[in-house]
Amino acid sequence: MNALSINTDLATRLLTGFIREETAKFGINRVILGLSGGVDSSLSAFLAARALGPENVIGCMMPYRTSSPQSKADALLVVEQLGIQSLEIEITPQIDAYFARFPDASNQRRGNKMARERMTILYDQSVAHEAFVLGTSNKTESLLGYTTLWGDMACALNPIGDLYKTQVRQLAAALGVPERIISKPPSADLWPQQTDEEEMGLTYEEVDRLLFQMVDRRMPQERLVEMGFSPAFIERVSKMVQGSQYKRRIPLVAKVSHRSIDRDFRYPRDWGH
Amino acid sequence: MNALSINTDLATRLLTGFIREETAKFGINRVILGLSGGVDSSLSAFLAARALGPENVIGCMMPYRTSSPQSKADALLVVEQLGIQSLEIEITPQIDAYFARFPDASNQRRGNKMARERMTILYDQSVAHEAFVLGTSNKTESLLGYTTLWGDMACALNPIGDLYKTQVRQLAAALGVPERIISKPPSADLWPQQTDEEEMGLTYEEVDRLLFQMVDRRMPQERLVEMGFSPAFIERVSKMVQGSQYKRRIPLVAKVSHRSIDRDFRYPRDWGH
Repeated sequence: MNALSINTDLATRLLTGFIREETAKFGINRVILGLSGGVDSSLSAFLAARALGPENVIGCMMPYRTSSPQSKADALLVVEQLGIQSLEIEITPQIDAYFARFPDASNQRRGNKMARERMTILYDQSVAHEAFVLGTSNKTESLLGYTTLWGDMACALNPIGDLYKTQVRQLAAALGVPERIISKPPSADLWPQQTDEEEMGLTYEEVDRLLFQMVDRRMPQERLVEMGFSPAFIERVSKMVQGSQYKRRIPLVAKVSHRSIDRDFRYPRDWGH
Repeated sequence: MNALSINTDLATRLLTGFIREETAKFGINRVILGLSGGVDSSLSAFLAARALGPENVIGCMMPYRTSSPQSKADALLVVEQLGIQSLEIEITPQIDAYFARFPDASNQRRGNKMARERMTILYDQSVAHEAFVLGTSNKTESLLGYTTLWGDMACALNPIGDLYKTQVRQLAAALGVPERIISKPPSADLWPQQTDEEEMGLTYEEVDRLLFQMVDRRMPQERLVEMGFSPAFIERVSKMVQGSQYKRRIPLVAKVSHRSIDRDFRYPRDWGH
C-alpha cells in the first residue's frame, strides 16, 4: 500500500464540490483553462466538466511553433472525450515579436515568456467568456518551484494544487483520462524533447515519496535516511523547496503602517463578511 | 495637520533599508522597474537609486503606440536626474499581434493585456540583467483593486506598497521627484486621456482620507459618517475593497492534504531557516 494513495471517490467529490462552490459564490458557472495535452490540465478539465457540465468548460490550446503536435492531439482528445468547448490561440506571433530583439535569449527565458503569455491570454479570454481561470499546477511542481511565477502558477482557483503528481495520475486514471496521456513522460513542452524528469534530474515517483514524508508527515532528516532516502537527495530537494518559496507567496511589501495588506489587514478575517 | 502625513526622513531610511536588505539576502544588488513617468514608479526609482546606487537601477520604458509622449519624456527626466540605466522596449508588436484576432476587445481588456505584457518583459529582463523586479503599486490602488492582477501587482519586492497615493506624493516631493511628475493627473496611460480619478469617479485626496480611517484606524461606519464621509461614498469604497480581495492573495487551491501550501505549510515558519 502506497502512502500517497488517495481515496479517488472522496477526492472527486471534494474537488468537484470545490469548483462548483467557489465559482457559484461569484455567480459565475464557467471556467477556462489551458489544455496542454498533459495529465495535469487533462485532470483539471475532467473535474471541471463533472462539476459544471461540459458546456461550461472552455479548454484553450495555445501552441508555439515548436510545440509537439502530439501535445495538441492529446488536448483535442480530451476536448472530444468530454465534449467541452475549445479555443486555439497561437502564441508564436507575440513570442517571436518580442525575441526578435533578443535572439540570444536562453530556452529558459523563452519558456518563461511563453508560460506568462499563456496566462495573459487565459485572463483575457476569461473576460471575453465570463469565466474563471482554472489552475492546473500540482503540489509537486509547486513545492519544487518547477513552475513559472505569474505564469502557470497564476489562476483564480486550482482544484489539483494540493495533489502530488503521482496522485494526479491516480485520480486521472480513476476518472477516465486517456491512458496515453497518463503514461507519457511529463513535459512542459517549452522546447522540443523537453521532459520534466530529465530537466530536474529526478523522477516524480521518488520525489513524491520524499516530499510526502518531508512536508506532509514532517519527518526529520534522520528518519528520512532510515527510510532509505540518500542524504544528498534529501539535501537537494530541501534546497529546491527553500529556494522556490518566493513563488508561493505574494510579493514582499515594505511595511510602514499599522495595517498592511496581507499582514495585519486581511479582508475576510478583518471585515467579517 | 493631515492624519496621513508621514515622517519623510524616517520613511526614506526605512524604505531604502528595505530595498538594500531584501536584495542583499539573495546576493543581488540590482533592481529593474517599469518607468511610466508617473509619481509611483518615479518615487520607487528614487528610493532604489538611494539604496543601491544609480548604477544598480534599471528603468525600463515600455510604451504602446498610443502611450502619451509626455509619459516617456517624464520617465526620461527621472533617468537623467538620477543617472540610472535605462532600457526601452515597445510592447506594440506583441499587443497588436494578439488583438489582430480580437479587434472588438474593449479598452479594459487591452489595458490589462498591456499591463501583463509589461510584467512579462520586466521578468524576462530581470533574468538578463540579474536584477530583482521592483514593484511600484501603492496602497490606495491595491486596496481599491485599481490594478491588473498578475500585471502591475506582480513583482519581487515593492517599497511603496504600504503608502497611500497622497503619501507617495509627499515622499516624492521630499526626495526631489520633479514637480511636474508629482502634480500631473495620475493615469495608467492605457488609453489616451485616461485618468485614474475620472475612471474611478473619486479623488485620491478624499479616498485616501477615507481608506486611512477605515483600514488603518478601523473606524466603524457611524464614526466615519460623523467625520463627514457620506454613507454612499463609504458603501462604494467598501465594496471596491471587498470586491478586489482576490487580487491581494495567492490563488485559491482546493485543500485535500494535512499540509497544504500557504495554509499549513509555510516554509519560513515551518522549516525554521
